[in-house]
Amino acid sequence: MRNLKTELVEIARKAKAASRFLSVLPSHIKNEVLKDMAFALLSNKRAILKANKKDISAARGQGKAFVDRLSLDEARIKQMADSLLEIAKLKDPVGQVIRAWNRPNGLNIQKVRSPIGVVAIIYESRPNVTADCIGLCFKSGNSVILRGGSQALNSNLAIFNVLKEVMQKHNLAEGAINLVTATDHQAIDYLLKLNDYIDVVIPRGGEELIRKVVKSSRIPVIKHYKGICHVYVDEDSDLNMAENICFNAKVQRPGVCNAMESMLVHRDIAARFLPGMLKKFKDAKVEIRGCAFTQRIAKWAKPAAEKDYRTEYSDLILSVKVVEDLDAAISHINEYGSHHSDSIVTDNNSAAEKFLKQVDSACVYLNASTRFTDGNQFGMGAEIGISTDKLHARGPMALEELTTYKYVVYGRGQVRE
Amino acid sequence: MRNLKTELVEIARKAKAASRFLSVLPSHIKNEVLKDMAFALLSNKRAILKANKKDISAARGQGKAFVDRLSLDEARIKQMADSLLEIAKLKDPVGQVIRAWNRPNGLNIQKVRSPIGVVAIIYESRPNVTADCIGLCFKSGNSVILRGGSQALNSNLAIFNVLKEVMQKHNLAEGAINLVTATDHQAIDYLLKLNDYIDVVIPRGGEELIRKVVKSSRIPVIKHYKGICHVYVDEDSDLNMAENICFNAKVQRPGVCNAMESMLVHRDIAARFLPGMLKKFKDAKVEIRGCAFTQRIAKWAKPAAEKDYRTEYSDLILSVKVVEDLDAAISHINEYGSHHSDSIVTDNNSAAEKFLKQVDSACVYLNASTRFTDGNQFGMGAEIGISTDKLHARGPMALEELTTYKYVVYGRGQVRE
Repeated sequence: MRNLKTELVEIARKAKAASRFLSVLPSHIKNEVLKDMAFALLSNKRAILKANKKDISAARGQGKAFVDRLSLDEARIKQMADSLLEIAKLKDPVGQVIRAWNRPNGLNIQKVRSPIGVVAIIYESRPNVTADCIGLCFKSGNSVILRGGSQALNSNLAIFNVLKEVMQKHNLAEGAINLVTATDHQAIDYLLKLNDYIDVVIPRGGEELIRKVVKSSRIPVIKHYKGICHVYVDEDSDLNMAENICFNAKVQRPGVCNAMESMLVHRDIAARFLPGMLKKFKDAKVEIRGCAFTQRIAKWAKPAAEKDYRTEYSDLILSVKVVEDLDAAISHINEYGSHHSDSIVTDNNSAAEKFLKQVDSACVYLNASTRFTDGNQFGMGAEIGISTDKLHARGPMALEELTTYKYVVYGRGQVRE
Repeated sequence: MRNLKTELVEIARKAKAASRFLSVLPSHIKNEVLKDMAFALLSNKRAILKANKKDISAARGQGKAFVDRLSLDEARIKQMADSLLEIAKLKDPVGQVIRAWNRPNGLNIQKVRSPIGVVAIIYESRPNVTADCIGLCFKSGNSVILRGGSQALNSNLAIFNVLKEVMQKHNLAEGAINLVTATDHQAIDYLLKLNDYIDVVIPRGGEELIRKVVKSSRIPVIKHYKGICHVYVDEDSDLNMAENICFNAKVQRPGVCNAMESMLVHRDIAARFLPGMLKKFKDAKVEIRGCAFTQRIAKWAKPAAEKDYRTEYSDLILSVKVVEDLDAAISHINEYGSHHSDSIVTDNNSAAEKFLKQVDSACVYLNASTRFTDGNQFGMGAEIGISTDKLHARGPMALEELTTYKYVVYGRGQVRE
């Protein structure tokens, strides 16, 4: 234990020291390294797949979804490499002048984007997170400390070693990228106490992991616990479009955080909209848990309990509620939702405007599926996570969200009167 | 106790409800209200001064600095009114489109500035904070819950009542501005647990108060603990300018967080710079605690212990250290400083660039006094606080820092493939 603690402090200390040099690394060098990393992943795919096989055979009996998240193949390695190339192409946020102005005393004040410093990522069993997070942190000038799930350790280590070798070839600071290989759970607790060195923690995984991190961390955490996303079908809406959007939001990939968990329908169109919509869901084997109105239309629907409206099913289950009006829909979403992604389907501009302003969520949609909340879909290359916090970053996070700013003030000897 | 808790939950619940309506209040109405507030402060100055007299007589024996912070006079009331007028003139950040782009599938994504929601301010004995924070939160579309020091309660309540009456005259949501009048210390603990309603807490006051808030808060806190600010005098610098800047940074107002606590001097100019500089400090009754080199030049200087370099004196005391070179100065500041405000005096562009990039502080200065770190001096009208955190906001904070953003996505029926 004593040794593990010392080892982690040493990693964090070196990461902090490296961050000072990363913060001034020119963009063209960072981009060159990222491209080399992408090629190195491709040319080492055999070794990576071999390591992944070990993890997969150890994971037998863990459930199909788990093994799927853990598994790599050539296409997935190519995807990782493509993400790194994409990140290389994106604009470097570091040094960007967000705003500049002069004061009457001649001071020139610039608000300049700068790296946060040291970023720790605590994640579960997706090995691609290893490459994505190294790429995003490196490009944004941050040192990174990765702690992946122990069941993906062989895969993570294989990917990490390939990328580390590229860093060494370029003579880059030793502490810039780090993988904690200790599988002991205490490693996470120790890491989360190193607030002298680590500036932010981003946990990625199930709600249980994230709550644990928040509870024991002395370092600021950016996170989302869950995604209880809504689609609200307004009275003035194109019901065909509404049906397509709701169906896509629920069925296309029900296990992810931006899938719809709750569908709200204006009462004046419920009798026209629900019969066809619910039949379509039934044909797709979606279990419906509905309000009294919903159950009158679909006798086969189960009744929704209060707690259904607060549940992230991550499955082919949907809660359905018929609401009085737009105001009731907004109130319901703000009260029961998770401030992640919510959509309104409407042709009415003033209803749309009200919904988009008053729904207090990271992403609000007009006439589109909630499934687009995703760094890639937003054009960010990759994502380091999604935030439902309101401070610092909200929604999908990538390069820009891995920066802070500083005020740089240029004077010619000014003193305060 | 039970009643206090219930009362605070009720305040917070109403504040949350009000925030939804504040978030859509048009700028011209907010500006009108702010102007009315300014006029109301001026026309009620007698009542405010009378309430303030009560607080001052109760505070006798509390020390001059305390009574000074607590005291109001006509000029200070005019200052409060002027700040409100200034805030009315500033651009409304709410609704500002930070960035907008289109995706290949036709989605239009807008990153839009929006209010945070409910802001709690926990402060000590400055009554002007009451008016400044109400003005800034109202203009940025946030509900505010104020909890000022009990020794300023009469003054705060008088100011609050004047502003509240203006809100009522304009028929504005009841929960938008709130003052907690319970002087019980438990009120703060209760407030800090209301993370379902309150989105952010900004404590303003001494380090002890701020540590207490951070320790017991379930709500995100934005803060600075202290200001250990440095001026580094580089080898290639105008020594007259350096002397003016260092003198101003230390002496002009030593009790505030942006005053210099530690002066660093490049060894190659130390023998030329220090004798005159230290004499000037001595004449101004500044106690010097210096390194061995410093003591050789000024026999009267006390020796600096390691912990002096980590101390915020808030007084006419200064630690002085002669450093090997620019790198040593940057390392010292990052290690011993508080990441608040640090300045370099130099004529060398590449030294300046290195310092400004690698010093990891909220505000970095070239050839200017650290004393300018202040919302007013930065042109923000007033300030809600200063942050040495790296997430969300850094340095002086005002309207923009009281907002978050949301992604608003406009579609025409797009679903995910």
